[in-house]
Amino acid sequence: MEFNEIAQTSLLYDFYGQLLTERQREVMELYHEENLTLSEIADEFSISRQGVHDTLKTAEKALQRYEEKLGLVSRFQESRQAIGKIDREIDGLAAECTDKRTAEKLRKIKEIIDSLDQ
Amino acid sequence: MEFNEIAQTSLLYDFYGQLLTERQREVMELYHEENLTLSEIADEFSISRQGVHDTLKTAEKALQRYEEKLGLVSRFQESRQAIGKIDREIDGLAAECTDKRTAEKLRKIKEIIDSLDQ
Repeated sequence: MEFNEIAQTSLLYDFYGQLLTERQREVMELYHEENLTLSEIADEFSISRQGVHDTLKTAEKALQRYEEKLGLVSRFQESRQAIGKIDREIDGLAAECTDKRTAEKLRKIKEIIDSLDQ
Repeated sequence: MEFNEIAQTSLLYDFYGQLLTERQREVMELYHEENLTLSEIADEFSISRQGVHDTLKTAEKALQRYEEKLGLVSRFQESRQAIGKIDREIDGLAAECTDKRTAEKLRKIKEIIDSLDQ
């Protein structure tokens, strides 16, 4: 998988992972988070390397189907992009700002943006 | 249902409705969007009033379970609250602002906020 694909899978997992079976979640976490190889995961569960591969593919397809139905990752990404734009505009204003009170308000807005769970 | 409960059900439906069965979605839309009564929906599908009631309750519980598992509505609401705060801060700055260029930038930020699919 390419970097973008891995990042997208990770985001899909973050959103919809709890809808997968326990086994699918275990395998995905060992592969994507612990970076174990297919063979290592196969050993862990006493199943074939092919079995691990199939579990991963089935889980990824399930995640993609959830996104096709719900589109919540895409909605989230749009919101994140918009907030990124706002953040840059605030930085621009802060860089030019000479008024102390305005600077304080801009700092407060930055704090709110930073606190967002993105 | 109280107003808050109805609003919450509507938000849950907006997020997870596509995971319900077609029949559940039809009944929920007739009840919550078209404002038909249970009896009217019962006539529509040639089922009992109790059947409609049960379908609605089952669907609502399914939506609540999705939210318990995924928490995406809650994540979205937090983000919306934060953006509301930013919006009010920007309004405060704009009200005090005398510099034309700053005012233009603030207007741009308001545009981005308004464009957000919330």
